[in-house]
Amino acid sequence: MKKISGSKIEIKSKFELTKRNLPIIYTPGVAKLSREIAKNKKRVYDLTWKKNSVAIITDGSAVLGLGNLGSEAALPVMEGKAVLFKEMGGVDAVPIVLATQDAEKIIETVKAIAPGFGGINLEDISAPRCFEIERRLIAELDIPVFHDDQHGTAIAVLAGLINALKVVRKNIKNIKIIISGAGAAGIAISKLLLKYGARNIITFDSRSPICKRCAYNKNDAKDELAKKTNLENFKGDLRQALIGADVFIGVSAPNLLKSEDIAKMNKGAIVFAMSNPEPEISYKKGKYGGAMVVATGRSDFPNQINNALVFPGLFRGALDTRTRFITDKIKIKAALAIAGLVKNPKSDRIVPEVLDKKVVEAVADIFK
Amino acid sequence: MKKISGSKIEIKSKFELTKRNLPIIYTPGVAKLSREIAKNKKRVYDLTWKKNSVAIITDGSAVLGLGNLGSEAALPVMEGKAVLFKEMGGVDAVPIVLATQDAEKIIETVKAIAPGFGGINLEDISAPRCFEIERRLIAELDIPVFHDDQHGTAIAVLAGLINALKVVRKNIKNIKIIISGAGAAGIAISKLLLKYGARNIITFDSRSPICKRCAYNKNDAKDELAKKTNLENFKGDLRQALIGADVFIGVSAPNLLKSEDIAKMNKGAIVFAMSNPEPEISYKKGKYGGAMVVATGRSDFPNQINNALVFPGLFRGALDTRTRFITDKIKIKAALAIAGLVKNPKSDRIVPEVLDKKVVEAVADIFK
Repeated sequence: MKKISGSKIEIKSKFELTKRNLPIIYTPGVAKLSREIAKNKKRVYDLTWKKNSVAIITDGSAVLGLGNLGSEAALPVMEGKAVLFKEMGGVDAVPIVLATQDAEKIIETVKAIAPGFGGINLEDISAPRCFEIERRLIAELDIPVFHDDQHGTAIAVLAGLINALKVVRKNIKNIKIIISGAGAAGIAISKLLLKYGARNIITFDSRSPICKRCAYNKNDAKDELAKKTNLENFKGDLRQALIGADVFIGVSAPNLLKSEDIAKMNKGAIVFAMSNPEPEISYKKGKYGGAMVVATGRSDFPNQINNALVFPGLFRGALDTRTRFITDKIKIKAALAIAGLVKNPKSDRIVPEVLDKKVVEAVADIFK
Repeated sequence: MKKISGSKIEIKSKFELTKRNLPIIYTPGVAKLSREIAKNKKRVYDLTWKKNSVAIITDGSAVLGLGNLGSEAALPVMEGKAVLFKEMGGVDAVPIVLATQDAEKIIETVKAIAPGFGGINLEDISAPRCFEIERRLIAELDIPVFHDDQHGTAIAVLAGLINALKVVRKNIKNIKIIISGAGAAGIAISKLLLKYGARNIITFDSRSPICKRCAYNKNDAKDELAKKTNLENFKGDLRQALIGADVFIGVSAPNLLKSEDIAKMNKGAIVFAMSNPEPEISYKKGKYGGAMVVATGRSDFPNQINNALVFPGLFRGALDTRTRFITDKIKIKAALAIAGLVKNPKSDRIVPEVLDKKVVEAVADIFK
C-alpha cells in the first residue's frame, strides 16, 4: 500500500491524448458539443460530466467534531469524502472549500457554480446557518441539494434503529428516545424519527433539553422541534432524562456518559454514541452498563453507523434518475433499504458494513 | 480507441479503498490533517491537492470563436482543456462554469472558491470584462490567476513570431505588424509584442483600427493600446493596412482575407491566421498569396500556434514554485523557451508540436 499522505484525489482523463484524437478532445471537436448544448441546454447531461458530478461544499465552520477550523483545514475531509463517493458510488465529487462563512454569500456562490454539477453535497457547515442555506438552495437550484451532516446521518441512524428495535423487540411508537446534540445532525435525526413514527423524543443541546416556551431555544429549527418533542416539558439534565429511556442517540461530544447512566435506562436499551472520533460513551462501557445494542461511528467496533452508508448510493440514484428533491419519503426508503440488507439483525450486527457495495446498490435502487 | 463522447474527465482516488485504510482516508484519519492545517494554513499545500489543482473558470460569454453560448455550452471545452492540463502538465484542473456573467459576481465567486485551488485559469470570458476580472483577481487572491485567452495566446504567438522572424531574417524593431481582433487575445498579443520590442503595430477591432482620439474606442483596454500603437494614426481598413506590412496576426473571424491581400504585404511576409476553427485565411491561400511563413491554430496544417503550447507548462511551473504573479517577464521567457525548442526554424516549422512533452518541461523550467 502506498503511504497515504498529501492529496487523495486527482483529475483523470478518460481518453489517452494522441495527435489523432487531440482535435476531437479539444478544439475544434468540442465546438460541435458546445453548439449542441447551446441549442438544447439539457444535452449538457449527456455530453459532459454533469450527469455524474457532485460539488462537495463546505465553509469549514464545523469540521468533523472539531469545530470551526476554516475552509483550508476542511479540505482533507472533503477529499476523503470524494474518495468514498467515487470508490463506492462511482460519483465524481469535487471538493469546493469556501473563503466565506456568510450564509448569503455561500448561497450565491453555490448557485453561481452549480451549472457544471449534477448535485450539491453540503458538508460540515454549522447549525443553524446550514438549515437556511440548504432550504434556499433546494428552492433556487434545479439539481438535488443534500446536507449530508443532517440527512446522511439521520438516514444511517434510522436504518440502525429499525434493526436495533427488531433485536430488542420494541416498537418505535412506544419508546422513549433521548437525543444528545441539537446541531445539524441532532435536529435532522429528531425530525426523521418523528416522521417514521416516534412519539416520545427529548433532544438536548449542549446545555439543556429543547422544550416549548424555553427561553434558551436559540433558533427556528429548535423552536420548530419544540412543538413536536418533549411533550411533557421535561427540564432536567441528560442523565436524569436517561432514567427509563429506551434509546440514547448521541451526536454531541465525547465521554458525556458513564456505564451507570446506561444502567438506569430501560431493559433492552439501545445506545448510539456517534460523536466522532471519540463517542459519548465507548462501546465497551455502553455494553458494561447493560445496553443490549451499542453502536458508534467508528470502524473498530461493531455497528458502525456512518453516513458513508448513505451518500454514495443516494447521489448515485439521484443522479441516474435526475431526481431533484430528496424528500422525507426517499430518506425513509433509504433507511429501510439499508436496514433490509441485514437479514437477521443481532445485537452486534444492525447495519451492513460501510464498504459493502450492496448498500450503494440498494440505496440507489429506491429511486427507480 | 474508445468512442469520445460524453464526459472526458473524472475524479480518481489515488488509493484503493479497503477496510484497513478507510479510517486513514476518511474519519478519523483526516482529523489529524485538518488539525495540522488549522494550526498552519500553509500546510494545505502539502496535505491536499491544492499544490496541484487549478480551477478553469468560465462564464460562457466567449466560447471558442462561437460567442456567448452560456456556461453549460462551455463545459465540453473546459473538459477538453482539463484533459490537456492533466495529460500534458500533470495538473488537476477542475472545470467551473458560472451561472452569472456579471463581472462583480464572477470576481466574488472565484474569490469564494479559491482556497481549495493552487491556481485560477480564466477561460472564454469576453472582453472587455475579462481585463477587469483578471486585474481584480490578481490583486485580491494569493494564488496565480491567468486568463489563457489573453496570455496563453500571446505567449504562443510571440514564440511563433520569434522563430518566423528568424526564417525571414527580420528584426521585430523594424517591422510593420497588423493585428486583426481587439478582444482578449488581440489586446494581449499587441501588448506583449510591444513589451518584446515591436514598434509599429496597428490593431483592428471588428470595425476599424484602434487609434488615438478615435470616437469608437469603446473601452479602457483599447484606449490604453491607442497610446502605444498606430502611431501614424492610420484610419483605413484592414486590407489597406496590409499594404507593405511584414506580419499579419489574426485572432478575429473566419475568411477575412484573400490571397491578393497577402500579395500586397512586404517580401518575406508572415501570416498567423488563428481564428478557430476557421482561420482568417487558409494555410494554402496564405501560401499562394506569397507569404513565406503561414501559421494557424489548426492541427491539420504545419505551424499550429495554440495556447496548448503554453498553459500546461506555465501552471506546472507556477504550482511547483508557488509563483503568484505571471509577469510580462515570465511571459517573454516562456515564449523564448518554446521558440528555443525548434533548433533550426523553417517556414513550415516555427513552433514545436502541441503534444511535445518537452514544451511543458521547457516552460515549467523558466520558473526555477
